[in-house]
Amino acid sequence: MSRVVTLTTDFGISDGYVASMKGVILGINPQANIVDITHAIAPQSIREASFILHTSWRFFPEGTIHVIVIDPGVGSHRRAVIFKTPTATFVTPDNGTLSYILHELSAEKSAQAVPLSDQIAKRALPEGCEAVSITKQEYWRHPASSTFHGRDIFAPVAAHLSLDLPAKEFGESIESLNAFHIPIPFKDPTGHIIGQVIHIDRFGNVITNLRSRDIPAAGAAVEIKNQRIANTSSYYAQGKGMMAIIGSSDYLELSLKDGNAAAFLGIRIGDTVKILSTLPR
Amino acid sequence: MSRVVTLTTDFGISDGYVASMKGVILGINPQANIVDITHAIAPQSIREASFILHTSWRFFPEGTIHVIVIDPGVGSHRRAVIFKTPTATFVTPDNGTLSYILHELSAEKSAQAVPLSDQIAKRALPEGCEAVSITKQEYWRHPASSTFHGRDIFAPVAAHLSLDLPAKEFGESIESLNAFHIPIPFKDPTGHIIGQVIHIDRFGNVITNLRSRDIPAAGAAVEIKNQRIANTSSYYAQGKGMMAIIGSSDYLELSLKDGNAAAFLGIRIGDTVKILSTLPR
Amino acid sequence: MSRVVTLTTDFGISDGYVASMKGVILGINPQANIVDITHAIAPQSIREASFILHTSWRFFPEGTIHVIVIDPGVGSHRRAVIFKTPTATFVTPDNGTLSYILHELSAEKSAQAVPLSDQIAKRALPEGCEAVSITKQEYWRHPASSTFHGRDIFAPVAAHLSLDLPAKEFGESIESLNAFHIPIPFKDPTGHIIGQVIHIDRFGNVITNLRSRDIPAAGAAVEIKNQRIANTSSYYAQGKGMMAIIGSSDYLELSLKDGNAAAFLGIRIGDTVKILSTLPR
Repeated sequence: MSRVVTLTTDFGISDGYVASMKGVILGINPQANIVDITHAIAPQSIREASFILHTSWRFFPEGTIHVIVIDPGVGSHRRAVIFKTPTATFVTPDNGTLSYILHELSAEKSAQAVPLSDQIAKRALPEGCEAVSITKQEYWRHPASSTFHGRDIFAPVAAHLSLDLPAKEFGESIESLNAFHIPIPFKDPTGHIIGQVIHIDRFGNVITNLRSRDIPAAGAAVEIKNQRIANTSSYYAQGKGMMAIIGSSDYLELSLKDGNAAAFLGIRIGDTVKILSTLPR
Repeated sequence: MSRVVTLTTDFGISDGYVASMKGVILGINPQANIVDITHAIAPQSIREASFILHTSWRFFPEGTIHVIVIDPGVGSHRRAVIFKTPTATFVTPDNGTLSYILHELSAEKSAQAVPLSDQIAKRALPEGCEAVSITKQEYWRHPASSTFHGRDIFAPVAAHLSLDLPAKEFGESIESLNAFHIPIPFKDPTGHIIGQVIHIDRFGNVITNLRSRDIPAAGAAVEIKNQRIANTSSYYAQGKGMMAIIGSSDYLELSLKDGNAAAFLGIRIGDTVKILSTLPR
Repeated sequence: MSRVVTLTTDFGISDGYVASMKGVILGINPQANIVDITHAIAPQSIREASFILHTSWRFFPEGTIHVIVIDPGVGSHRRAVIFKTPTATFVTPDNGTLSYILHELSAEKSAQAVPLSDQIAKRALPEGCEAVSITKQEYWRHPASSTFHGRDIFAPVAAHLSLDLPAKEFGESIESLNAFHIPIPFKDPTGHIIGQVIHIDRFGNVITNLRSRDIPAAGAAVEIKNQRIANTSSYYAQGKGMMAIIGSSDYLELSLKDGNAAAFLGIRIGDTVKILSTLPR
């Protein structure tokens, strides 16, 4: 059964950990088409993995299986889970790696201002989705190590899923998954829109939680770290110096023409961004 | 249709950009065999990408499609193009990424001394080749972002090309492509051959624009940064200290046994290399 | 013929070297399923490559072909070899890259205390295995460069092996391979077990040559760099601070909870580790 299986880990690419997972998958399904999303997640950064996965998963073919192994709790009692949307399947420790995707798939009825935080809480499944706690050991490698479930549990489960085994073969259904709060932009008392920096990419582009719908149609300027960026642009080549732009995942990004915006302004994940809807004179 | 599609970008491997491109390609052609050339091109270094592509492309099977996305002008009016040689197809912004390949495929009739420069100019197509400006939006992702044409234009166009759609399906024929000048070795008034450093690899090997045909058969010594390297060798293990060698792409390289030649001599891309055809006594 | 071909090199991923090898393989066997083990081996570190290969190869499907190119002696008289076990095939310079695997496959009859060293010596083949010196040039790329046998010899030979050509097609049988000594734990006069650090991974986990069978059942503490680690754990999440754990490849590892053990203790490969079988009062 030819099916895409993606991998997202913090294992890096200098050891044999990722290769061992691939070997296990190909031993079970030689037709699996394995694609790396990234293995350069900062060690144990569930938040980073969750964000990157969320900007990539929709571009894969229907039926793709995504394996995410950022697993500081490996060997402890944290659950291993399968999460199925109508178009994709995820296999991961239940530790927050699916936070952005759950947020994206849920209607944001209860949108409220929450700070960026790594605290996780139970979150009900979005409509039309199902989840399973991976408890049946039948499809694991044996003996399963207590330190490398990526190789011994997640890889073989994903490989069997790629052979079209139903999720319920692997354990019992569950009704919620762990997720951390995704910060949602809000209006402060003066009417300015307040967002946060949620990711910094390799070019130094600063990605915020502000979407195109959050930005007033005209006259908007961005304030961050006491700097004001009046220069808005629809693409990188157009702007000069520091600029604000709606990026390829529909988030407001701050970019520095031919430079590294994050380094230039000393910006870190979690920093506050303010949209000044009307410019002071 | 099983066909190799290679990717060369400056996106790095820590974000989800490359994976998104792969997902798009596999959604259109599940049989595409995607191979990374590299994603570690220095940000916006068209020159580096062009060189690395030129040392790799000939080793791929006939019919391979090469996607190159070094795209500082994304969203602006720079053209997106398809370039076809009798054996390979390239999909890229028309910004110089094909310079070395165009140089390689053209008879060097007008060889002349030009310094290393990033200035680009129109170059006529080599004989037997064709090029197309990608203008028909039918095969793009929609809505196409203005900041990530790799995912929204180049990936889907390459995927459709891998299904054997003819290049002309994607836009109108063009007669020239943008390329920067490739520096060509020349003789100075004293008869010495003057070349330039065009690439430095991960081992610190210094790669020059001098080919084996440029090197006098015997008695050659190399001068760079006021250092003279008399030690010529046909392979790395043979030499000691600093040595000059014809590398695997037929360029003269300077290597330091068990060390980093570029760092040791403080060499940078663009530095001058001199071949002393007769050694002074 | 669909077959997995893995690659392990020190070429890095910023140049086109690895891609050229992949292109050559796919030109010969379009069905080859190429998997990277790693290309981030420290330049010329045969020892590191040998260790990483040994922790990965068993997880690949039967019939997998492993290509290892750490090749400081390229172009010199070092042999190129094929090594076949009952389940896997290796293609590599004969310079020690197979040391850990030969050690693993041989009954350790002559186990003796030897220090960590890069000195290599001939080692007889394990039972049931065969080896061939690659001398017939029929399957090489021509002209073969003297600096890049990965592309011109190892890649095409591996590709032809993946088409099920027998190893003997490529040269004459040989009876031994070069290997360095693998350090074996031993008891010192006071009854303590002495081991060595053999690898440090990207998380800073310190991997020793001590296996689970070397560790007394209870009461064990570990001493390294004048530090005592009494905290033993069966998985990372359980421990606190510095801990000793049996890792996923059955080696005793030292880990620092949420930190880098190697950096914290200043540990280097080759450092001595002592198991205190009975704790002093």
